[in-house]
Amino acid sequence: MKTSHPPSDRTRVRRGAGNAVYEPALVRAIVDAAYLCHIAFSDAHGAHCIPTACWREGDYLYIHGSNGSRMLKQLMAQDACVTITHLDGLVLARSAFNHTMNYRSVMIYGRFEMVDEAEQRRSLDAFMEHLAPGRNAEVRGGNAKEHAATTVLRIALAEAACKVRSGGPLDDEEDMGIAAWVGELPFTHQRGAPVTDPACAVEAPAYVQQWASKG
Amino acid sequence: MKTSHPPSDRTRVRRGAGNAVYEPALVRAIVDAAYLCHIAFSDAHGAHCIPTACWREGDYLYIHGSNGSRMLKQLMAQDACVTITHLDGLVLARSAFNHTMNYRSVMIYGRFEMVDEAEQRRSLDAFMEHLAPGRNAEVRGGNAKEHAATTVLRIALAEAACKVRSGGPLDDEEDMGIAAWVGELPFTHQRGAPVTDPACAVEAPAYVQQWASKG
Repeated sequence: MKTSHPPSDRTRVRRGAGNAVYEPALVRAIVDAAYLCHIAFSDAHGAHCIPTACWREGDYLYIHGSNGSRMLKQLMAQDACVTITHLDGLVLARSAFNHTMNYRSVMIYGRFEMVDEAEQRRSLDAFMEHLAPGRNAEVRGGNAKEHAATTVLRIALAEAACKVRSGGPLDDEEDMGIAAWVGELPFTHQRGAPVTDPACAVEAPAYVQQWASKG
Repeated sequence: MKTSHPPSDRTRVRRGAGNAVYEPALVRAIVDAAYLCHIAFSDAHGAHCIPTACWREGDYLYIHGSNGSRMLKQLMAQDACVTITHLDGLVLARSAFNHTMNYRSVMIYGRFEMVDEAEQRRSLDAFMEHLAPGRNAEVRGGNAKEHAATTVLRIALAEAACKVRSGGPLDDEEDMGIAAWVGELPFTHQRGAPVTDPACAVEAPAYVQQWASKG
């Protein structure tokens, strides 16, 4: 585990600073638990917050899209903020204002860079491997035309800050006598039973059969 | 159900326009399924993407925070973009580039406005009612000091666009002979068993007992 790195002007957490963590291993864990991120950037119309699929390799977060995407063009020309949030539960306290939520979030600041063609092919294969291990060998890979129409960008995880809250409520001493149920109402990120396409007669491979039990 | 409203310059979907819906009932349904949103805005440090709890009443999305929050101050001084995304599944196709995800997302553009003190009290009670019906009567409500330190903002759902994808893969005709399993690997948004705080001896009310079965 790497040592913590100091927060920048952009990543220093002001609100709920007690929940802030500047720890590369935690950044990676929160990214790895996600299939998509939200990206903030600006253009002549103002600020935009766009959800997009993402994956991690090393200390970079990757995204991809069509060459014509206005977001991808903007992201190469300005710094952006990438945020991933996992909501883990509602926390019910004895006073209304001490109610809160349990969550794990990461905010990543920096400039996206385009990867070259060889790296694009390699990283898209890695993305597939992340989604469905072994599937690259089963499907038709991208052809020259598909790769030429696609852009892969990556952003370093260097300037990043996590916020994490877990556990039960923190009530004020004078409220401890209030006779309300207190605790956490958790969310669990389950996987449902695979839905085989009606046109498909192929037996489900291991990564499909094991999907619903991956938790 | 209201009729669709036309997209603005900001909400007209360019990428995957076939998945775009400008339908107020769908905007409300996607917001109601969420406990948090991501908000994009800018300041002297550039663009930020901040997750925060949200709830809906009528055709407004509400958020709250401390008076001192730099985000809340910025949101009253500039237009913002609020995005909610529910990831419903991975879609596995016969070619790598036809893999996609099923999701429901909404992007809302506009200016947040602060609500007055009476509306703040009413809307925070409504937020609690949304989280845990009946709980307002069981806990200590906010006192004058807590309310005075808190700001509630709302943004109209008027300028909003949804994107929704569901169903199985759409493969190209020439790939239909590829012998790969195809279909959807769903995510289900489950609720876990309530975790009673160790210091709590109060029996769980109905909204806690029914939590895990709410689905």
